[in-house]
Amino acid sequence: MRLRLTPREDSFYDMFAASANNLVTAARLLVELISDGADREAIAEKLRACEHAGDEATHAIMHRLNETFITPFDREDIYRLASQIDDVMDDMEEAADLVVLYKIDQLPKGVVQQVEVLERAAELTAEAMPRLRSMKELNEYWIEINRLENQGDQIYRRLLAHLFNGSYDTLTVMKLKEVIDRLEGATDAFEHVANTVETIAVKES
Amino acid sequence: MRLRLTPREDSFYDMFAASANNLVTAARLLVELISDGADREAIAEKLRACEHAGDEATHAIMHRLNETFITPFDREDIYRLASQIDDVMDDMEEAADLVVLYKIDQLPKGVVQQVEVLERAAELTAEAMPRLRSMKELNEYWIEINRLENQGDQIYRRLLAHLFNGSYDTLTVMKLKEVIDRLEGATDAFEHVANTVETIAVKES
Amino acid sequence: MRLRLTPREDSFYDMFAASANNLVTAARLLVELISDGADREAIAEKLRACEHAGDEATHAIMHRLNETFITPFDREDIYRLASQIDDVMDDMEEAADLVVLYKIDQLPKGVVQQVEVLERAAELTAEAMPRLRSMKELNEYWIEINRLENQGDQIYRRLLAHLFNGSYDTLTVMKLKEVIDRLEGATDAFEHVANTVETIAVKES
Repeated sequence: MRLRLTPREDSFYDMFAASANNLVTAARLLVELISDGADREAIAEKLRACEHAGDEATHAIMHRLNETFITPFDREDIYRLASQIDDVMDDMEEAADLVVLYKIDQLPKGVVQQVEVLERAAELTAEAMPRLRSMKELNEYWIEINRLENQGDQIYRRLLAHLFNGSYDTLTVMKLKEVIDRLEGATDAFEHVANTVETIAVKES
Repeated sequence: MRLRLTPREDSFYDMFAASANNLVTAARLLVELISDGADREAIAEKLRACEHAGDEATHAIMHRLNETFITPFDREDIYRLASQIDDVMDDMEEAADLVVLYKIDQLPKGVVQQVEVLERAAELTAEAMPRLRSMKELNEYWIEINRLENQGDQIYRRLLAHLFNGSYDTLTVMKLKEVIDRLEGATDAFEHVANTVETIAVKES
Repeated sequence: MRLRLTPREDSFYDMFAASANNLVTAARLLVELISDGADREAIAEKLRACEHAGDEATHAIMHRLNETFITPFDREDIYRLASQIDDVMDDMEEAADLVVLYKIDQLPKGVVQQVEVLERAAELTAEAMPRLRSMKELNEYWIEINRLENQGDQIYRRLLAHLFNGSYDTLTVMKLKEVIDRLEGATDAFEHVANTVETIAVKES
């Protein structure tokens, strides 16, 4: 029998994995929300529940942090990573809420592409979290998230040019821009998560 | 007679308390500014003076940091906390300046609610700063600021929906949105201050 | 013959200097781009090349960080400084791209002033980077960048008031605002770089 000298620390990996899986659920709800014929109010409600679950997961991580003497990596990075995962969720939930609140009928095609980028980023993040344990293959994740963020950026710029081409009325432009900005914010927030993971890996290197 | 081995460090608590009290003054000026019949230019001028006082307080903290060998908590966190208190002030001052600059006649009711949230957040922050000394009861502060930030977020979203309902002309929508965005920015900035306080508490735990 | 105990660390200073010089090149391209009769597409293309060079410089710094055992200052600060220099470039490149993408004919005079502030901030940053070696005279740089950021802020607010004065059609207001926001974002990003330099100096003090 081997003694476990740092008995509790492993739970952080599982907690971050659970938080990231929650982002996958949220991103898939966003895909649903923007599909034709979707019951948008019901899906936005599910996303709100997802966000509450995320808040509780974040608080659980903070609580565990206060109880744990030896952490697997810097306390500050655990704190930051939890906060940044929370930021992704907040932007996704707000985008969904605004679509419903503004009663937006039709979303431009670029929004579908934005949401696909988010779904892929969420999946990559969820796959990367368990790799924090070994600190291996995190570089690939970081490179891929950066690539996705660049792609999201191109989609975003083309969407802005599309919005401003004169085919929408002004209020619709403004409403759509709020939604599109939140989705772009979520893509950026995924990059912040990846940057923190990279910082952790750099410190451990 | 007892020797004081760390003679200067205590001053940081007082300096942060003074900076946070300055935010309370600024928030109350914002409440005044949006009241009926207010002399907006005069109040915006007072807010500018408040912001200058804040800048000087921030520089005094940085200067003290350079002179102090032993600090009560991480140098980097002192630096970050001072910067983030500064960010709150910048957003509040800019919101006031834009109201005057755009000659906005009537502000929607939601703006009053936004400013009330800011006033409460400023008061809570000012009350929390002296508690950094004992690191006690900071969790309540953090929870309450997070609750206020959520409330501010709801007010903000409803304000956007109100702005975009077609009852304002386009330029008015744009001007009001700039003001409302700055106030929402100040609410977020209060949360960043609270997050840094939480980080400090987590490190000390 | 003297032994060099930390053989590789010096390269970071040169790498940061090169990254900051790249920002000077980019800022000067922005000045060109907004000049009368400029071939905007060609210049935006050069700025894109500049941004790619910046990305590669950032990755080189990260790579070096992984290989280096003893770094001249905290690994995390090296990481953050590289990322923040990258953020400046991203905003400048995006501003240029949007000017071309939106086919904006005439830019308001305030935009020229914004770009002049950026050029000066880039020069100051490039001059400051080699001083990281001695940690001397960094305070002047920090104060001057903060002054420039305040100046940029005043220009930005007057530009917003100008945009909203009713002389532009709505779509033009929206397009110009996107460009002006990115330029203001670049000014803020220069301040973040200066703040990180200040944090490094504070830690070493």
